Amino acid sequence: MSENTYTKPGEAYERDARYITTRITRDGTSGYPVEAGRYRLVAARACPWANRTLIVRRLLGLEDALSVGMPGPTHDERSWTFDLDPGGVDPVLGIHFLRDAYLARDPEYPLGITVPALVEISSGAVVTNDFDQITRDLSSEWAAFHREGAPDLWPAEHREEMEGVMRRIYTEVNNGVYRCGFAGSQEAYDEAYGRLWVALDWLEERLASRRYLMGGKITEADVRLFTTLVRFDAVYHGHFKCNRSKLTEMPVLWAYARDLFQTPGFGDTVDFEQIKRHYYEVHRDINPTGIVPLGPGGMAGGLEGWLSPHGREALGGRPFGDGTAPGPVRAGEEVVR
Amino acid sequence: MSENTYTKPGEAYERDARYITTRITRDGTSGYPVEAGRYRLVAARACPWANRTLIVRRLLGLEDALSVGMPGPTHDERSWTFDLDPGGVDPVLGIHFLRDAYLARDPEYPLGITVPALVEISSGAVVTNDFDQITRDLSSEWAAFHREGAPDLWPAEHREEMEGVMRRIYTEVNNGVYRCGFAGSQEAYDEAYGRLWVALDWLEERLASRRYLMGGKITEADVRLFTTLVRFDAVYHGHFKCNRSKLTEMPVLWAYARDLFQTPGFGDTVDFEQIKRHYYEVHRDINPTGIVPLGPGGMAGGLEGWLSPHGREALGGRPFGDGTAPGPVRAGEEVVR
Repeated sequence: MSENTYTKPGEAYERDARYITTRITRDGTSGYPVEAGRYRLVAARACPWANRTLIVRRLLGLEDALSVGMPGPTHDERSWTFDLDPGGVDPVLGIHFLRDAYLARDPEYPLGITVPALVEISSGAVVTNDFDQITRDLSSEWAAFHREGAPDLWPAEHREEMEGVMRRIYTEVNNGVYRCGFAGSQEAYDEAYGRLWVALDWLEERLASRRYLMGGKITEADVRLFTTLVRFDAVYHGHFKCNRSKLTEMPVLWAYARDLFQTPGFGDTVDFEQIKRHYYEVHRDINPTGIVPLGPGGMAGGLEGWLSPHGREALGGRPFGDGTAPGPVRAGEEVVR
Repeated sequence: MSENTYTKPGEAYERDARYITTRITRDGTSGYPVEAGRYRLVAARACPWANRTLIVRRLLGLEDALSVGMPGPTHDERSWTFDLDPGGVDPVLGIHFLRDAYLARDPEYPLGITVPALVEISSGAVVTNDFDQITRDLSSEWAAFHREGAPDLWPAEHREEMEGVMRRIYTEVNNGVYRCGFAGSQEAYDEAYGRLWVALDWLEERLASRRYLMGGKITEADVRLFTTLVRFDAVYHGHFKCNRSKLTEMPVLWAYARDLFQTPGFGDTVDFEQIKRHYYEVHRDINPTGIVPLGPGGMAGGLEGWLSPHGREALGGRPFGDGTAPGPVRAGEEVVR
């Protein structure tokens, strides 16, 4: 997101899905070969698309190969900024405005300054901000740097079904909440709201008998659903008017989301305070005062609820399949609660 | 409310509590004697202060003595209007803008065009809009017109304690939700939010062992708390950021509110669609798009939840004491669901 006006009167919300699609690959044919220490992942904790990359990096154990820079939760119309870092500057990239990394790639860069972005450290230039492709490539192209015991997030036997599930989750849920929140007319909102809840009801039913979206093991599809669910009651329910019910009122999805939250690599990437500040302070056209609600359950986002027993073990399954859980969060990368 | 700007940057919300305080009395010393058919109650269903008068009029059976005019849910900066009536004109007062009744009282009337208002039909002039006094007088001054079996909403033995309870409910809850929603700074919001939830926790505890606020019978205090609770999840939770939890997540208050909702005279005055349209369409400074959320539970406000069993009979008590429940809603005054 790069502007502070998100709604267009009379119009439905349409995400600008034009990204820098250069890939970082094993064979380096794109000019950007996979290489430890060569790139920096820029990922704001507040952003659901960036959150995907933080989770996948943890699950796969890419911390040593790929460092991370984290812009703060708020930004103006120009850019995400590294305002949480000492001096307001990312210690590796040496910039305050993430925009500078986009301009290093293209001095006339005309599109949104978004996260996640992968930046080549030596040139200071963004290689890609194509979030859908980034996590695909972390699983495939970066395999040589995966930790021992890293899970297979894209199991071949489920690949085809997964793509369909993830497509529906993207259009109806991940982006669906934005289509509710940034609707420029009652009609556009009503339509988006209807589609969102049809999809959430489908997921509620699908997950009633499956521990995870594709069965007994965590896959990339779970990562993608989780980042929306974990923000649901904190921001989408009120700020985006996705309020048929709270997540906590959908028993299956709420237990599923808690199960993931309590799994190493998921909840330990989530900062409710940053999430709330981002949405409520940045989207001034739908929250002109910029006031950030204290609920649900206080600024911590009802953490005690997220940590409560979920009972999903009864469905069986092994979260990491033949692999193992990731170890502790790296020093300096912990969420402050 | 008369303006469409409710928040003042940097400031806490302060309700303008200046009203026309003329009373309609038995002895007529004010120039306005109690008399059947002489006055018209103007009360928008959307408004919680007006809702009190609609409930009390029903409970006391004042329908024959005091007719009612109902402005629609939305209004501009000038006035509530009778836009739901045929031709947009109140059939008794013959006006479109409620403002005209205020100007008939005082051509220079400088304050808010508010509901409820009692209007003298012959002069077309507002007698009073002092909502706190209006329901007091309906119970006392209008006693000669009460129905057979009308409850005593101001029992002498509880009067002193009631005044304290109602004062706290007014400042912390009835007006407290507005202080959250119209806060002009994060600090003002945080303070209002804290006070609101202290009071709701107090009420949750008080009502755990008491069927109604003052014991086993409904009093005016219950009327005053009900009109805020019934709006809580529909508008205060999201629109006013009163979101530590939903009412449905406070077991005692939720059961108490359902008990009253299902009691003749309470739920039959409540129109969730009008409530939602009023808050979300009128307060453009906190909801610039004017989009009205479809939740909770659809435009009907989760009516099936409101009608679900509450179990409060187990606490004993008789809602109307030695009196009886009011009869059916008058033809033409039914809420359309």
